[in-house]
Amino acid sequence: MTSAARTPHLRRSNLALVLDQLRRRGSCSRSQLVAATGLTRSAIAGLVSELETIGLVVETPPAPDGRPGRPSPVVRVDDQCVIALSIEIFVDEIGAAFVALDGSIVASVRAARPRARVAVAETVTDVAGLVDRLEAQLADLEGRRVGHHVIGCGVSIPGLVRDADGVVVAAPNLGWIDVSLAESLSSVLGCGVPVHVGNDADLGALAESRFGAGVGSDHMIFVSGEVGVGGGLVAAGRPVVGHLGFAGEIGHLPVNPDGRRCRCGSIGCWETEVGETALLERAGLDPEGGRAAVDELLDRAAAGDRRATDALAAEARWLAIGIAGLVNVLDPDTVVLGGLFARILPAVRARLDAELDDRRYRAARRDVAVVGAALGSQAVTVGAAELAFGPLLDDPAGVVTLRPSTVSLRSRPARSS
Amino acid sequence: MTSAARTPHLRRSNLALVLDQLRRRGSCSRSQLVAATGLTRSAIAGLVSELETIGLVVETPPAPDGRPGRPSPVVRVDDQCVIALSIEIFVDEIGAAFVALDGSIVASVRAARPRARVAVAETVTDVAGLVDRLEAQLADLEGRRVGHHVIGCGVSIPGLVRDADGVVVAAPNLGWIDVSLAESLSSVLGCGVPVHVGNDADLGALAESRFGAGVGSDHMIFVSGEVGVGGGLVAAGRPVVGHLGFAGEIGHLPVNPDGRRCRCGSIGCWETEVGETALLERAGLDPEGGRAAVDELLDRAAAGDRRATDALAAEARWLAIGIAGLVNVLDPDTVVLGGLFARILPAVRARLDAELDDRRYRAARRDVAVVGAALGSQAVTVGAAELAFGPLLDDPAGVVTLRPSTVSLRSRPARSS
Repeated sequence: MTSAARTPHLRRSNLALVLDQLRRRGSCSRSQLVAATGLTRSAIAGLVSELETIGLVVETPPAPDGRPGRPSPVVRVDDQCVIALSIEIFVDEIGAAFVALDGSIVASVRAARPRARVAVAETVTDVAGLVDRLEAQLADLEGRRVGHHVIGCGVSIPGLVRDADGVVVAAPNLGWIDVSLAESLSSVLGCGVPVHVGNDADLGALAESRFGAGVGSDHMIFVSGEVGVGGGLVAAGRPVVGHLGFAGEIGHLPVNPDGRRCRCGSIGCWETEVGETALLERAGLDPEGGRAAVDELLDRAAAGDRRATDALAAEARWLAIGIAGLVNVLDPDTVVLGGLFARILPAVRARLDAELDDRRYRAARRDVAVVGAALGSQAVTVGAAELAFGPLLDDPAGVVTLRPSTVSLRSRPARSS
Repeated sequence: MTSAARTPHLRRSNLALVLDQLRRRGSCSRSQLVAATGLTRSAIAGLVSELETIGLVVETPPAPDGRPGRPSPVVRVDDQCVIALSIEIFVDEIGAAFVALDGSIVASVRAARPRARVAVAETVTDVAGLVDRLEAQLADLEGRRVGHHVIGCGVSIPGLVRDADGVVVAAPNLGWIDVSLAESLSSVLGCGVPVHVGNDADLGALAESRFGAGVGSDHMIFVSGEVGVGGGLVAAGRPVVGHLGFAGEIGHLPVNPDGRRCRCGSIGCWETEVGETALLERAGLDPEGGRAAVDELLDRAAAGDRRATDALAAEARWLAIGIAGLVNVLDPDTVVLGGLFARILPAVRARLDAELDDRRYRAARRDVAVVGAALGSQAVTVGAAELAFGPLLDDPAGVVTLRPSTVSLRSRPARSS
């Protein structure tokens, strides 16, 4: 390939560059794009026009600002045209949503489910039913505005997802081993769009990094408290994936080598000491009590209940121990706490800061921001959509072949109801 | 910048691509370069010719292979022309070497030094003297072959080096804080080439990744046993640097939260349990005894001395605990053990493997190679040179302005001896 033959790639990477800038900034003028990208005014004009034709951005005339001269039109990401289907699979709940290219949620549905339905076949059936409801919801919206085009599907899983082929190698809490979920879902949904599968904490990290508490941080650690502990890492602005795609299993840092056996097979992993199960057990509450039990714990602590405050203090101490280690290994500028850890943060802030101060590498004299997630429970929803948008963001002109403006992902039998 | 205006950058990045391929493969034919890079035959011819003009590669006629047709010339990295000055600063020793672009060491000198001379001023003076000796050694070699061109200097430090400006923020074992070492060295050496400073374990990781046990691995962790524990990380083929440049401080993973206070200020860091000090203490030997004491320990263990074998078993156990955690967080394909850990590896292999097996995340069913460093004590020497070669490797045409073929880095007063 000669230099000349590679020039079309340059145009495509410039399209990606402009789209990325618009997503980071919300909306901006062409002049601001010129300043941000170093491309010429005429190059920007051509690229914006191409992105508009594809249906990824819209350009609107500026409001008159009273100053002499012609004000620059405002360009922004189109939140109407291209959308992704985001599917979330948890142990006790499933969710589906349509998310626009600007990260906004267009429509969403969730459903609780009994433990008896966590097997793969039941999960796939239930997800298909949920997507039916989601499409109906979108069809109602469509009545009121322009058609959306679904360009991909991202699925979040509480487990290890192999990067090479998207196989769910293991999801211990679901009892899944070696599941080709993308294939099963594609076939049941009958959809013509690619299905991508990712680990829930990795997806939460991606979303927080692009739209949440990690915006502006190139070196971020996302530490999410769930039943156990999940994590996602960003280094030099990119997700750290690892050899097989399993990076970020921070819940399995060995923090207490003489501690309890972990469900992973090792001993004294971080998640044997922090996370919902560990916290509720220490407080003498039902370790399977979920969110309601955590709320109960926070209420008791606020009322001065000693066992509750002790449990939170222990959680803060072990949380600091793991965070201090991760900071030493990865040197982030920002640590974003998600899930349970974001919920309890106000209650443990003082103790957490004191423990972190006691366990920091003093010589480094660094200032790491430890903050709560900004997107809350929507982080994983948005992250799964980001996974689906991935190929489009890498090559805006190469991916979008606009589907006919119909809502349905598949041919369904007519409903009798 | 339009697409057309960016084309020269393409040529430069293609030069870097070809040079990188040649460094990975040693020597190869133009046809192999065509296959490896996807560039056309004529593009490769032009790029190889340009690299040859700059003095980075040489092309030699092939040996006749008896087959019909004209055999392809062999291209290889020039190990004669461009070299880097590599400087290593340890607590009890300093070293200087000239390293060629293919990673081979052209000349090297080392000197022990008393603890009284670890201050910055004394260190800089002693390094300057050592570089004098190194240049004299090279001058002797020059008599026998073509002139070398020093294009940069890389310095290895046992401490935290800030990425943005190369300042040694802290080197606890040297007692250094906020030292602008590159500036001091540049001024004393009077050299016109850029001076780059890096952390010793990061540089060892870089060298092992490019020329040693990590070749072929895109996700590597380098775990080096010294007085304490140093580390260097490679993810997706690139060094993990972190926000400030401090990533890889794996010696300060908290593995034993109720353990001993660490010199970093925290409690129960990994290096309070493994590394030379911890190992020798457990064996009842002088913890400051250095390499000789480790040899003594290995001899005693080989002879069946119980305290020595127990100390090695404890070292293997704690080593496995930390490695297991790092594997879960970073998902490498290869863990390279350097320094002390490489030396004791044969003696602890069985116990290390058993402990790793007991502490692995079973669901991941992954196969991580845990191997000894291939470059031994030369890893840091070569790594410091790689740091110096960095700008050249990124942009071969942009950096090399060949200096006159003189050996001396600076004007020196004539020596009386």
